[in-house]
Amino acid sequence: MNRILIDPAEWAPDRTVVLSDRRAVHIRTVLRAVPGSELRLGLIDGPTGTGIVRSVSDSAVMLECVFESALPPDPPLLDLLLALPRPKVMKRFWPVLASFGVRRVGLINAERVERVYFDSHVLEPGFIRAQLLEGCEQAGGTRLPQVTVHRRFRPFIEDELADWSPGTCRIVAHPGTAARMRDRVSPDPAGVLLAVGPEGGWNAFELGLLESRGFQSVGLAGGALRTDVACIALLALVRDLQA
Amino acid sequence: MNRILIDPAEWAPDRTVVLSDRRAVHIRTVLRAVPGSELRLGLIDGPTGTGIVRSVSDSAVMLECVFESALPPDPPLLDLLLALPRPKVMKRFWPVLASFGVRRVGLINAERVERVYFDSHVLEPGFIRAQLLEGCEQAGGTRLPQVTVHRRFRPFIEDELADWSPGTCRIVAHPGTAARMRDRVSPDPAGVLLAVGPEGGWNAFELGLLESRGFQSVGLAGGALRTDVACIALLALVRDLQA
Repeated sequence: MNRILIDPAEWAPDRTVVLSDRRAVHIRTVLRAVPGSELRLGLIDGPTGTGIVRSVSDSAVMLECVFESALPPDPPLLDLLLALPRPKVMKRFWPVLASFGVRRVGLINAERVERVYFDSHVLEPGFIRAQLLEGCEQAGGTRLPQVTVHRRFRPFIEDELADWSPGTCRIVAHPGTAARMRDRVSPDPAGVLLAVGPEGGWNAFELGLLESRGFQSVGLAGGALRTDVACIALLALVRDLQA
Repeated sequence: MNRILIDPAEWAPDRTVVLSDRRAVHIRTVLRAVPGSELRLGLIDGPTGTGIVRSVSDSAVMLECVFESALPPDPPLLDLLLALPRPKVMKRFWPVLASFGVRRVGLINAERVERVYFDSHVLEPGFIRAQLLEGCEQAGGTRLPQVTVHRRFRPFIEDELADWSPGTCRIVAHPGTAARMRDRVSPDPAGVLLAVGPEGGWNAFELGLLESRGFQSVGLAGGALRTDVACIALLALVRDLQA
């Protein structure tokens, strides 16, 4: 953890917080904090701050918290449409998405997505939030990605996508495309909306519909990558171009 | 699998091969091959080729194989020194390294690597080979990375590193460095040797010794990433610059 994240509801009016979960274990056993130690804190979806350890016991850690008055600057805007991968992959992927500072994640359907994936526990809001917090703590941010699930591809693209950040540079990853990310993305204050397909790729209808909505195709250098690995590669390329 | 890989020892003088392991299952149930189907093949560390299915049964698939006379072109040279991650991470990471077409992988020690990691079964040659094959099949290549394990950091850097591809561009990933991959790597026929540290980073001695051997530091845009995610991001940036 590069930052301990506190839920605003946990914070008492006297500016203290008592932690007794995995964060307390981390503070005690990994950070080896003692009374007086200073820790990097954040309020979830709020400002960063500092916590001074007031007491440490086997069961709890008490912190006195001071938070900045201003929110930390947002990273360059990066939204992701991801064809829902199989649950085993999705489960591991939540912290990754948070650590890249993705703002919105839309999990969408596609022909090559199996319908049962949408019934998995890895899409339960409580599970998602816990996993996103882990990634946020790793990356040192405070803002959790907003996650939405869209079981029908065409209605989502035709009716709902218009509400997603107008003016972003729309990119669709499609294996075999010669154009690279650097040919499409410039450091642009309007941000990037990246669409990543399922294992096996988009079908022709899906790719056509995305292109009709302004998505430009890009490919990756080298051989075919597993979808989750390709998605990390694509997010890294966008972040590098935005910086 | 984008390519079925055959061990040269499996290939009979009559140019046929009989498969009865996970490859046979894949050919039967995923590719749904029937007699006459053509499959993309490769000889491990050898040429690509084509297999014509001669028979399919519940227990075995017989292929007639034709391989190219020339080896496929090597991808741009990319070698990796990786501070050994914990076994759970390393286990998942083998196919990833193969799918990026990394030529040599040296797993090295560092202060923040736990010694017990070197005794894990994920470093057994048979396990490594099976995992690398999976990544190679995914990426469509035929060449497996060469893997070596180096339990002592300083003797390796001082005495053995000289044997690693002289003339490559040497890069060490170090969080917080302002210089980016694109500032250091150009499309260079001599290739890239990338060093990626442990969770928590290199210590000052390790970074200094690497820099004394010509490694130049680079950082990634955005927040801190888990080491395996950062490594994928770095490999993707190198591959993009080499293409």
